Amino acid sequence: MSILIKDATILTQDATRRRLHGDVYIEDQKITQVSEKPVTVEADYKIDGRKKLLLPGLINLHTHLPMTLLRGYGDDMQLQEWLQQRIWPVEARLTPETIASGTALGALEMITSGTTTFLDMYFFEETIAEVIKKSGLRGFLGFGIVDFGTAQYKSDEMLPACERFVKTWHRDPMIHPVVAPHSAYACGPESLRRCQEIATKYDVLVHTHCSETRDEVYDMEKKYGKRPVEQFHSLGLLTPRMSLAHCGWITKTEIATMKETGVAVAHCPVSNYKIGTGGYAPIPEMLAAGIRIGLGTDGAASNNILDMFDTMKFAALGQKQHRWDPRVFPAQTVFDFATIGGAACLGIQNQVGSLEVGKQADLIFIDLDQPHLTPVHDPVSHLAYAVRGGDVCTTIVNGVPLMLDRKFLTLDPHETMEKAAQSATRLTS
Amino acid sequence: MSILIKDATILTQDATRRRLHGDVYIEDQKITQVSEKPVTVEADYKIDGRKKLLLPGLINLHTHLPMTLLRGYGDDMQLQEWLQQRIWPVEARLTPETIASGTALGALEMITSGTTTFLDMYFFEETIAEVIKKSGLRGFLGFGIVDFGTAQYKSDEMLPACERFVKTWHRDPMIHPVVAPHSAYACGPESLRRCQEIATKYDVLVHTHCSETRDEVYDMEKKYGKRPVEQFHSLGLLTPRMSLAHCGWITKTEIATMKETGVAVAHCPVSNYKIGTGGYAPIPEMLAAGIRIGLGTDGAASNNILDMFDTMKFAALGQKQHRWDPRVFPAQTVFDFATIGGAACLGIQNQVGSLEVGKQADLIFIDLDQPHLTPVHDPVSHLAYAVRGGDVCTTIVNGVPLMLDRKFLTLDPHETMEKAAQSATRLTS
Repeated sequence: MSILIKDATILTQDATRRRLHGDVYIEDQKITQVSEKPVTVEADYKIDGRKKLLLPGLINLHTHLPMTLLRGYGDDMQLQEWLQQRIWPVEARLTPETIASGTALGALEMITSGTTTFLDMYFFEETIAEVIKKSGLRGFLGFGIVDFGTAQYKSDEMLPACERFVKTWHRDPMIHPVVAPHSAYACGPESLRRCQEIATKYDVLVHTHCSETRDEVYDMEKKYGKRPVEQFHSLGLLTPRMSLAHCGWITKTEIATMKETGVAVAHCPVSNYKIGTGGYAPIPEMLAAGIRIGLGTDGAASNNILDMFDTMKFAALGQKQHRWDPRVFPAQTVFDFATIGGAACLGIQNQVGSLEVGKQADLIFIDLDQPHLTPVHDPVSHLAYAVRGGDVCTTIVNGVPLMLDRKFLTLDPHETMEKAAQSATRLTS
Repeated sequence: MSILIKDATILTQDATRRRLHGDVYIEDQKITQVSEKPVTVEADYKIDGRKKLLLPGLINLHTHLPMTLLRGYGDDMQLQEWLQQRIWPVEARLTPETIASGTALGALEMITSGTTTFLDMYFFEETIAEVIKKSGLRGFLGFGIVDFGTAQYKSDEMLPACERFVKTWHRDPMIHPVVAPHSAYACGPESLRRCQEIATKYDVLVHTHCSETRDEVYDMEKKYGKRPVEQFHSLGLLTPRMSLAHCGWITKTEIATMKETGVAVAHCPVSNYKIGTGGYAPIPEMLAAGIRIGLGTDGAASNNILDMFDTMKFAALGQKQHRWDPRVFPAQTVFDFATIGGAACLGIQNQVGSLEVGKQADLIFIDLDQPHLTPVHDPVSHLAYAVRGGDVCTTIVNGVPLMLDRKFLTLDPHETMEKAAQSATRLTS
C-alpha cells in the first residue's frame, strides 16, 4: 500500500525537531520521503494536507483497555471504596466477550484521538490481543499477574498462562507481549522473580504499577521493609526492559537507582489527580537524571478518557503549578514525552515516534481549521494546550489508514459502541 | 421563533437536579415546556434529541476575548517576562479592527464549545459589545480600567468613557455592561471608588482580578499595608455586585469578609496552573461558607482555549489532588459552578442557568454517539471528566440557534477565522 500526503505542516520530531511544510510519501509500511519539494508519484491514497498538522502518532504508556466499560462508573470515591464497591465486583464478572467489547471500544477511542501505539495491562490479555490485531493498532500488551486469582485464572495458573501468551505473540510485528506483574504489593517476591525470568527468556518488556499512592509505599515498608522501587530492585526487576507506571511518591535516592538501572517511567497525571493520590511524580528531576519518560492516560475508569492531548495538558500545567514555575515542562517537552520519548520507553525509538525516512509510518493529522486552533503562532503550543482528541481527523499506523477524514476503516464504530454499551450494562446491573 | 426538541436526555439543573428523558418546547425566547410526555406542536425548528444530552448553556465567568489572537504566543514564560515581552507590546498596538476580529473569533469558539453567557473584561469594550451583539451571545462586558493609559484612552479619559459605555448599554436585554477595574494594584483607591460610584449609579456589576499571585498580595501589603481583599473592602467595593477573578491566595479571614459582603468568585484553574501561580483557591472552604462560585477560562493567551469542559475537569481534578481526596468537587458540583452557580454569580439565576419553564432558552446539546462518551453510566460524570468542547453540536441562546448540528448561524466561521489570523499576524510581526 502507498500513501501520498501533499502540502502539510509537518512536525518531524526527529533529532532537530524540524518543522517544515511539504509532502510525505509512505510505501509498504514505511516513510520513504519527507520533502519540502513537491513529491509527484502515484499512490493508493492521496491526502490533502492543507490546513492540517501532520505529526507522529501518539504513544500511550499506560492503559487498561477494557475499563472503558467502566467510564464514569464510580467517580469521586476514595480509592479503597472505589475498588471494593465498584471495580472488583465488576472485574469478578468479566468474560472474554465483555473484554472484547471493551477493548474494541478502547481501540476505537485511541484511533479517533490519535494514539497509534499503547502499553496495556489487564486480564484476559489473550482476548485483547485478538481484538487489537484486528484494529490495526501497535499494541504492547501486558499480561496481568496478581497473587490472588482472577475471573480467568486461579493464582497458580497465571504465570504458565503468561508464558504461553508471550510465546504465542513474541514474534508478531504489531502485537508485543509484555509481562505485567500488577505491583510489588499484589505480587510477592516469588511471582516477581518468575515474571522477570519469562521476560528475560523471551526478551520482552515488563510493566508494573509503582509508588502510585502514599499508602502503598507505607504498606510495602511495613510488610517487606522496602519501598516499591527497592523491592523491585532487590529482585532484579529494574532493568531497561522495565517501565514503571505512576511513580508519584519517589525519593531522590530512588531516582538515582532508576537512572542506574535504566528503567522507564509512564507518567499518568490525570489519573493521579482524579484519584487524589497527592503525589507529584518528580518528573523534572527524572528528566535531569536522563531517565526515559512517557505519558499514560491510565484506564478510562480513572481518567475518564484515553485522550493523550488531555494528558499532555495536565502533565504540563500540573508541574508548572506544583513548582510555581511556568517554564517547567514547556510544550515541546510534553510533546516529546507523547511521541519519541514514549517510543524510547518501549525501546522502539528506531522504528516509530518521529517522521523520518525509514521509520514505520505511524502518523496522525490534526484539523487546524477550527476556532480554538486559530491563529497558529506555534503548532507545538497547540498540541500541548489547545488540541483535543476530537481534532484528529486521520490516523495511520504501520502505513495503513485506520481512520481517514474521521471515517473508521478497521472497526465498525456503531457496532462497537453498541456492543460496549450492552456489555457495560450487563456488567454493572 | 419556536423550537421543539424531541426525545433528549435532559439535565435540568433545577433545584432537584432532575434528569429526565423527553421533549422541550421553546417559544419567543423562553422555555415553555419541559416534559416527559411527548409534546406535539408545530415549531420553526424541530431538533431530534436522540443520542444527545441537553443541558443549560455554560457560563464562563472570566474572559479577555480579543486575546484569542495571542493563543500560543508566549507560553511557558514567567509572568513578568510574558507581560513585558509578549502581551504589553501587542496590547499597545491594538485597534478597533483587531479587537473586533479577536472578539468574533472568541465568540465563535464559545458558541462551538457550549458557552452561552460570559463575563469579559478588556479594553475597546465598545467594539467588543458591537461584535457580541451580532453574535447572539449573552455578554457581560467589563470596561477595563487601569490608572496608566491604554492604546485607546489616556488615563483621565477612561472613567468618563466607562460611564458612557455603561449608560449606552445598561438597558440592553443581551449586552450587560460591567465596570471592570483591572485590579487593586493597577487601580489606585480613587479610581476604585469612582468605579463603584458608576456601578451603583447604573446598578451594574463590578469585576476585577484579585489575589492571583503571591507577588501581587505581597506588593499590595508593601504599598498599601493591605491585602487586595482588604483594599477592596475598605473602599466599599465588596458588595453583591462584585465578582473577583482568581482568588488563589486567600486567607480564612478573607473568606469570612467575602461571605459577609456577598461577593462572588470566578475560579480560573487552567490559567492559574499554566502561569504557575502556586495558589490553590480555597474553593471548598468558600463553598462551605456559602460564597457564590463560578468558573472562568481566563483569556486564550493563558489557557489556551475557551473550553469550559476543560476548565471543569481541571477544577475538579486540581482540588482532588491538592486535598488528597477524590471526594472533593464531585462532578455535579463543577457542573453546578458552570451553569446555575455561574448564573447566581451574575445575579441572573432567575433567568438562565437551568432548564425550567419560564426561563430564557439558553441551552446546548452534547453528541453522545462517540467512543469517548460510551457507555453512559452517568451523564454528569461525562460533563466533568470526558466531554470536550468539540462534542457540542447545537447551541441555542435566548431561544435563537447560534449553532445547529455544528453549522454556525450568526457568524461566518471561515471569514472570522481568516480575519483573526490576519490580525494576529499583523499584531505580532
